[in-house]
Amino acid sequence: MSVSEMLAPAAARDPKSTEAAIRELAAAFGNRLVTSQAVRQQHGHTTTWIPNQPPDAVVFPQSAADVQQVVRICATRNIPIIPFGTGTSLEGHVNAPQGGVSVDFRDMNRVLAVHSEDLDCVIEPGVTRKQLNEYLRDQGLFFPIDPGADASLGGMAATRASGTNAVRYGTMKDNVLSLKVVLANGEIMTTASRAKKSSAGYDLTRLMVGSEGTLGIITELTLKLYGIPEAISAGICPFPSVDAACNATILTIQSGIPVARIELLDALQVQATNAYSKLTLPETPMLLVEFHGSETSVAEQAERFGEIAKDLGGGPFEWATKAEERSKLWQARHDAYWAQRGIRPGSEALATDVCVPISRLAECVAETQADAAQAGFIAPIVGHVGDGNFHVTPLVDVNDADEMKKVTLFLERLAARALRMEGTCTGEHGIGQGKINYILAEHGPVTIGVMRAIKQTLDPQNIMNPGKMLPAG
Amino acid sequence: MSVSEMLAPAAARDPKSTEAAIRELAAAFGNRLVTSQAVRQQHGHTTTWIPNQPPDAVVFPQSAADVQQVVRICATRNIPIIPFGTGTSLEGHVNAPQGGVSVDFRDMNRVLAVHSEDLDCVIEPGVTRKQLNEYLRDQGLFFPIDPGADASLGGMAATRASGTNAVRYGTMKDNVLSLKVVLANGEIMTTASRAKKSSAGYDLTRLMVGSEGTLGIITELTLKLYGIPEAISAGICPFPSVDAACNATILTIQSGIPVARIELLDALQVQATNAYSKLTLPETPMLLVEFHGSETSVAEQAERFGEIAKDLGGGPFEWATKAEERSKLWQARHDAYWAQRGIRPGSEALATDVCVPISRLAECVAETQADAAQAGFIAPIVGHVGDGNFHVTPLVDVNDADEMKKVTLFLERLAARALRMEGTCTGEHGIGQGKINYILAEHGPVTIGVMRAIKQTLDPQNIMNPGKMLPAG
Repeated sequence: MSVSEMLAPAAARDPKSTEAAIRELAAAFGNRLVTSQAVRQQHGHTTTWIPNQPPDAVVFPQSAADVQQVVRICATRNIPIIPFGTGTSLEGHVNAPQGGVSVDFRDMNRVLAVHSEDLDCVIEPGVTRKQLNEYLRDQGLFFPIDPGADASLGGMAATRASGTNAVRYGTMKDNVLSLKVVLANGEIMTTASRAKKSSAGYDLTRLMVGSEGTLGIITELTLKLYGIPEAISAGICPFPSVDAACNATILTIQSGIPVARIELLDALQVQATNAYSKLTLPETPMLLVEFHGSETSVAEQAERFGEIAKDLGGGPFEWATKAEERSKLWQARHDAYWAQRGIRPGSEALATDVCVPISRLAECVAETQADAAQAGFIAPIVGHVGDGNFHVTPLVDVNDADEMKKVTLFLERLAARALRMEGTCTGEHGIGQGKINYILAEHGPVTIGVMRAIKQTLDPQNIMNPGKMLPAG
Repeated sequence: MSVSEMLAPAAARDPKSTEAAIRELAAAFGNRLVTSQAVRQQHGHTTTWIPNQPPDAVVFPQSAADVQQVVRICATRNIPIIPFGTGTSLEGHVNAPQGGVSVDFRDMNRVLAVHSEDLDCVIEPGVTRKQLNEYLRDQGLFFPIDPGADASLGGMAATRASGTNAVRYGTMKDNVLSLKVVLANGEIMTTASRAKKSSAGYDLTRLMVGSEGTLGIITELTLKLYGIPEAISAGICPFPSVDAACNATILTIQSGIPVARIELLDALQVQATNAYSKLTLPETPMLLVEFHGSETSVAEQAERFGEIAKDLGGGPFEWATKAEERSKLWQARHDAYWAQRGIRPGSEALATDVCVPISRLAECVAETQADAAQAGFIAPIVGHVGDGNFHVTPLVDVNDADEMKKVTLFLERLAARALRMEGTCTGEHGIGQGKINYILAEHGPVTIGVMRAIKQTLDPQNIMNPGKMLPAG
């Protein structure tokens, strides 16, 4: 299937059934069922080049029982259901290619319990990561996963999100203890207890994390928490080359320095960031690092990292121990996307990500830079290099068909390059619609066959976020 | 189903089919197919009170292709297949209640690759954890998961094993990057790439980890590795009560001290350990702790832990920084099982485990001690308390029917107690046969329904380790 076929306007399922389902939903939910054009479009994909495919209606549940009712009405009518958190997904997960009902968790945003001794909390899926961390701050606790956007935690679990400090704290798969999930038949499943570990049966928590709403709808999450570190120290370190920066990262991790974040910006990204965030960073490849721990431990980590960087020709290493300086630095990192768009005004930033074993990272970045240059794209790179994960963002004119064709080929080569280097076509953005053409090449027919069998078993009508993740058989 | 029903001699499937399958296997594998009584019995359960149910034959594959051939022959004849590592499982996972063929991975014990820059390795399932760590030592690397026994890594993945240092390094679910698995139809599935993280599709790695051989047979593992810490320091600290020891553990973790192991021994266990390991520990509840890091960091962690312990009435805190002293200490911990059996010569040690949120741990241990005392059992307790996981080991005379009945009820109350406290009936031993009566109570009918649906989809003939984990429908 070509990208253009994938993105062709998709027909809804039987229009009469859709109308009937919407009537039933309106009767049940009153003004919490919305069908206005504007609201529907807001609930289609809005963040990247992927076209907006709005749902037929949007419903705002206030409880798991509401979600069950939505699912039962839609199941009876064979109507797709698309869960919606904050809509910050980059791969089209919230689009409605076959029409259907978007389930917006805006009103399910309560923190239900914080167990500070157990370092966990129980929340509704609409809670965003910033909201949770504000709620937790007074108790000296935090939830570490930070994908940049202020995403909902339900959405982050559904896409197996990670971000800048996954190198130390893991991804969503490592930080969800249990989920409540409404299945395609309307039943509610609890995947696990609050115990920190268990060997009681199949790991349905991990099966649901990253399933992109295709197996069920998350209505409650139990998450791991961490004590806010006594000391946090962040710094920036320029390097003569991407290769040197990657090697410094490898040595840092090999020597057991528990780095909390280690982010690569290539020279092009540093230029963009300087311009957008009004900074004066040296315009060479750069690592942004952050250490968490006791005062002593953070100082020691910083010193040892500085030595490694120096050995590899990096430096000088500048430190920001004050919270305001650190915030400015990480805000600049998080604003990478906006900085990128500033390089080519009017362009769309086609943000994509791949992840490879860290030993192949420098090579993968270098080949990608060369490929972009040859294809004529401005394509800055930022990376969660501790995990071998990087983002490349060609800046494109989506109205230029020729350019879009060229960029499609560039993305295909990128995915193929990551797979050739024993990596994955997506480290953290997910498959959704945007990468549905690569998953078969990544996993092969046997593994995809198992995924399809599980999908078919748990959602025989294919009403749970259809048209995402698994290509048509 | 009562325990006695569960353990009643189980009929093999059609005996003629079994004979035919064994003939075909003998033709294919020659003297790598063994049917002697002694070898068959060695491949049934041998480690606890659960009766030995030997397979009809044992085959020793040398490659994934061999395993595929075994599976295809058995599938054709509808004969069960039971994977076998070192046979150290405690819950009857290797038994053959319906007869069938045990697949012993003794000959598949090669380390296929070590990627030191990526901190991962690729191994065959018969590699044991000690073998792997000996192989890795010269490269300054180690694999941390340590369930005590020198188990095979294939078995450890299949049962989602963990052990003493899971508090810092996680369990097998956190340390397997990818698996190759022979499915019930004989196909080989690769669950993931070597990338440190991915959001490409369902997490089949985690679905297979902990599936106890019921969904497929692991033929290759890619595991995460760690640099051997620059400094390791272990110590013992007596406490006035289990409650004080648990509170010290909670505070240690809350304050972000990255403790690598934190193990509770109750007074009874300390007495047993003193007697067996010829030590002179004070016979009160005790924490054994270990810290990993730089010299500075380890010293700081120890100092801070000492302060916490003192605040809670614990101490004096004695340190063992020399490798030999540390080894002696941890050997004594690992010998807890043998020490226990020494308390009541001739008894069987009915080792079991549960795991609860750490805030409930002291209460759960106290209730369990009181329950054992009331029921008249000597039942020492050791615990991976950083995770809320503990082992209680009633010492029983398996030939005394009345005592066995009483202990069955004690175990049922233990599981129910853990569930009532939002925990799990098994933190790390798995379900197997021994806990098959508790999994429904833990997960409820919807979740068990999903597990059964997945099992039915991937193994419609129920030939993959039948009679384990999921109770008959």
